[in-house]
Amino acid sequence: MAYNLLKGKKGIIFGALNEQSIAWKVAQRAVQEGAEIVLSNAPIALRMGELNKLAEECNAPVIGADVTNNDDLNNLFTKTMEHFGGGVDFVLHSIGMSVNVRKGLPYYENNYDFTHKGFDISALSLHRVLQTAMKMDAINEWGSVVALTYIAAQRVFPDYNDMADNKAVLESIARNFGYFYGTKKKVRVNTVSQSPTRTTAGSGVKGFDGFINYAEKMSPLGNADAAQCADYCVSLFSDLTRMVTMQNLFHDGGFSYTGVTKEIIEQMEK
Amino acid sequence: MAYNLLKGKKGIIFGALNEQSIAWKVAQRAVQEGAEIVLSNAPIALRMGELNKLAEECNAPVIGADVTNNDDLNNLFTKTMEHFGGGVDFVLHSIGMSVNVRKGLPYYENNYDFTHKGFDISALSLHRVLQTAMKMDAINEWGSVVALTYIAAQRVFPDYNDMADNKAVLESIARNFGYFYGTKKKVRVNTVSQSPTRTTAGSGVKGFDGFINYAEKMSPLGNADAAQCADYCVSLFSDLTRMVTMQNLFHDGGFSYTGVTKEIIEQMEK
Amino acid sequence: MAYNLLKGKKGIIFGALNEQSIAWKVAQRAVQEGAEIVLSNAPIALRMGELNKLAEECNAPVIGADVTNNDDLNNLFTKTMEHFGGGVDFVLHSIGMSVNVRKGLPYYENNYDFTHKGFDISALSLHRVLQTAMKMDAINEWGSVVALTYIAAQRVFPDYNDMADNKAVLESIARNFGYFYGTKKKVRVNTVSQSPTRTTAGSGVKGFDGFINYAEKMSPLGNADAAQCADYCVSLFSDLTRMVTMQNLFHDGGFSYTGVTKEIIEQMEK
Amino acid sequence: MAYNLLKGKKGIIFGALNEQSIAWKVAQRAVQEGAEIVLSNAPIALRMGELNKLAEECNAPVIGADVTNNDDLNNLFTKTMEHFGGGVDFVLHSIGMSVNVRKGLPYYENNYDFTHKGFDISALSLHRVLQTAMKMDAINEWGSVVALTYIAAQRVFPDYNDMADNKAVLESIARNFGYFYGTKKKVRVNTVSQSPTRTTAGSGVKGFDGFINYAEKMSPLGNADAAQCADYCVSLFSDLTRMVTMQNLFHDGGFSYTGVTKEIIEQMEK
Repeated sequence: MAYNLLKGKKGIIFGALNEQSIAWKVAQRAVQEGAEIVLSNAPIALRMGELNKLAEECNAPVIGADVTNNDDLNNLFTKTMEHFGGGVDFVLHSIGMSVNVRKGLPYYENNYDFTHKGFDISALSLHRVLQTAMKMDAINEWGSVVALTYIAAQRVFPDYNDMADNKAVLESIARNFGYFYGTKKKVRVNTVSQSPTRTTAGSGVKGFDGFINYAEKMSPLGNADAAQCADYCVSLFSDLTRMVTMQNLFHDGGFSYTGVTKEIIEQMEK
Repeated sequence: MAYNLLKGKKGIIFGALNEQSIAWKVAQRAVQEGAEIVLSNAPIALRMGELNKLAEECNAPVIGADVTNNDDLNNLFTKTMEHFGGGVDFVLHSIGMSVNVRKGLPYYENNYDFTHKGFDISALSLHRVLQTAMKMDAINEWGSVVALTYIAAQRVFPDYNDMADNKAVLESIARNFGYFYGTKKKVRVNTVSQSPTRTTAGSGVKGFDGFINYAEKMSPLGNADAAQCADYCVSLFSDLTRMVTMQNLFHDGGFSYTGVTKEIIEQMEK
Repeated sequence: MAYNLLKGKKGIIFGALNEQSIAWKVAQRAVQEGAEIVLSNAPIALRMGELNKLAEECNAPVIGADVTNNDDLNNLFTKTMEHFGGGVDFVLHSIGMSVNVRKGLPYYENNYDFTHKGFDISALSLHRVLQTAMKMDAINEWGSVVALTYIAAQRVFPDYNDMADNKAVLESIARNFGYFYGTKKKVRVNTVSQSPTRTTAGSGVKGFDGFINYAEKMSPLGNADAAQCADYCVSLFSDLTRMVTMQNLFHDGGFSYTGVTKEIIEQMEK
Repeated sequence: MAYNLLKGKKGIIFGALNEQSIAWKVAQRAVQEGAEIVLSNAPIALRMGELNKLAEECNAPVIGADVTNNDDLNNLFTKTMEHFGGGVDFVLHSIGMSVNVRKGLPYYENNYDFTHKGFDISALSLHRVLQTAMKMDAINEWGSVVALTYIAAQRVFPDYNDMADNKAVLESIARNFGYFYGTKKKVRVNTVSQSPTRTTAGSGVKGFDGFINYAEKMSPLGNADAAQCADYCVSLFSDLTRMVTMQNLFHDGGFSYTGVTKEIIEQMEK
């Protein structure tokens, strides 16, 4: 079902890797709702090659950018503004990576070079994107920025490792930049805290299967999937949510406010 | 701008009093988006007579109900289901009243009969509506219930008086009933925590003008108004937000996560 | 171990029923730390007779009071002030009861007379105690009031029923009265959100055993017990915590900020 | 007033610079309560020379350590354990520095080398301290770690700049390490979120005077000072608070849960 909710709007989607990616679904859904988009991802992700399929489907240019590199971001926004003949109305930030997780180092044996690298890619990248955009005046008035996050920013999920800290600071950056960009140009910035989702990134976390099963049983509506997340992001890019800013919005079937469920209690009694 | 977001959906709107009411705007906006609605309010509010204007505009029946009375609620849902030939897809709860506020009794001199009355009308009414609906199976699968609340449920606003406590319990009821209705029938229940708004109810609070001015200066996007709140409610009634439940969602231009603003600091230096 | 932390301080302890009660342990611990106390409970609880044992041990008068009755509270504070020759320095509110729970009515089939009764006893009682005390100037400057609560005020624990709503409003009352009593007389008001505890009250909740086991596995330090809660309350009554007010303080071995534990994941895989 | 609350306990205090420092007061207060301590600070801070005065008064060795350097921390814990003939019972982390703040770069014009440096010193340092301690088994069972933080981690205070993000991740690290250290060895880790305080660090923030004045008027008990913070830390190092972990504890006279005060409203009407 399409509503033309984003008719006339332009946006940048960061982080689509393959069909499992939330960003992939958001891109499709935004276009379905009438938006024009630019796709961006890290050079290494582009070389994997699947993104071109999406680009074709969405009639969208792909502009590579290492989000830890200011020049790359300058280039991305410059080319995007040339492409659209002006600024953008929405941005999706779906970027995260922890070297400590990849290397299997537990939280209490983290390597701090890895920590800095994960911080740079997963969290500071949102600051870089927004600072670059503000300097170039690249987001239109009443624009909407959404970054994807996870509830490990609020509570401990042991295997999530230093990504928990990265998500905590990501949410803080959304809040702080939301203040400045809101005051200056009515741009809103929010994070969406999504259920665990079977994406390439999600699956890399140790014990993911046991965990996604737990989350499913702890969510009155079950886990939210990637397509549903795309629906929600579209509502946040639309003009219906103009006064929502600096928020962390749980999109998780009720997991975040559920202390325990009957199903979990029954499982405990086994 | 209309998107047909609620095409085919039916709903009940509680609490429209006059053109200033948030519920009034939600009713208009829902109909504009393709919904059919029933309007309900307390018998005394109906006698003031303005609601008929809205009913005509929206082509909606008005069914009176005292929300502290189980029989009235039974009657309301029975007639609503007859009218629609089935259950509803959304419900707006925009109901609140404190006798202590009306009588000008400060929080530390409350009259407890008044407190019970305010609790019954402002908070327990949501429980009654949902319990009645569940018993009669009056809300369709994936239905959406929104109740309006205020940030006094989280932080102290001295003149808000015992309405703060009422809103705290209202949000708790949304959460708890959200669990049961979600588990049972995928119905979601959320609260929207709205900026202070110049409605008949809002204006009754002492020091409202000074306060709304403060909130405006403390909100990076300024205070959200009633029409914007209606937009947001429409997004929450739509299918785009199916996995959002048991949440308290701030619709306040960023007030909730702003600790201080430059404007306030400057005012402090006067 | 005793430190004389409460030397010279006087207090009122509400809600000691028997040796399992948290209030019982708080009374013993406060006296051990040098305080003088008055014990109070509902007339029906007094008739059960165990409280006299504690009264003797603590050299404390017992003054009955129905906390839903203003006259009883007036009498309690009057006699307490006569007994001490002045005001008190601390108050423990450990009071809660839900008729809906007792009658086994699930949350979605609550009886609203029962709900009002539970609200009056479990939540509004704190307001009554504080309003009475403020009117009679019965709490000394820098006095400390602690009310016991449970995390069901923040997240859904299905069997906790309407006590969740009662605790939500109890915490709101602590916050709001904390503002007024703090501004007026530097009195602080906080709630302590305690692990599930094997007391007479706790054990009345359906599925309590399965639940306490779950909480134990979800708490990095395990569940906090009644004696440890008493230790914590003593620290909050002492002069070391004078600037802590309007807070909800989790005393739960880390449960509140734990999303999942290895133990739970392992249990899920069985 | 001293209670012997920390008799027999050993601790490390990071971050005392001069008499205004909160860490300075905590050191004095801990010793007054019977503890033995080691003082640590960055080499550059030691060269300023005032710390020796405190060291003498507290009969405490000073062991310099750059908290961004693993070797320095190894050395610190090795020497501390030699000095005490065993592990420590408490640690205070009172460390924070933002180069962006020092250089006067606003949040939307941050230099990312500076950001990484501030992150390393202000936040990651807590992880390093805990990881080093855990590896060396340097904290005794039931030990207590407290890190000082600020409410800018939750809400935006524009001039606090990237320290807000640093504090957000500091709190996340406390939570996450609290899980692992609690599970492993019953060590608890908490943050204390303190009122703005006139320390050397605090005074470096732009607009600090206007802001501290605002906070004073927004706190029902007024701002908490450094000596009161020391009292609170002592309670958290003591055995009275053993089951409190992974918490962020506001020590702020009620600021955190106050939405507005009469004084602020009056100021707004000027």
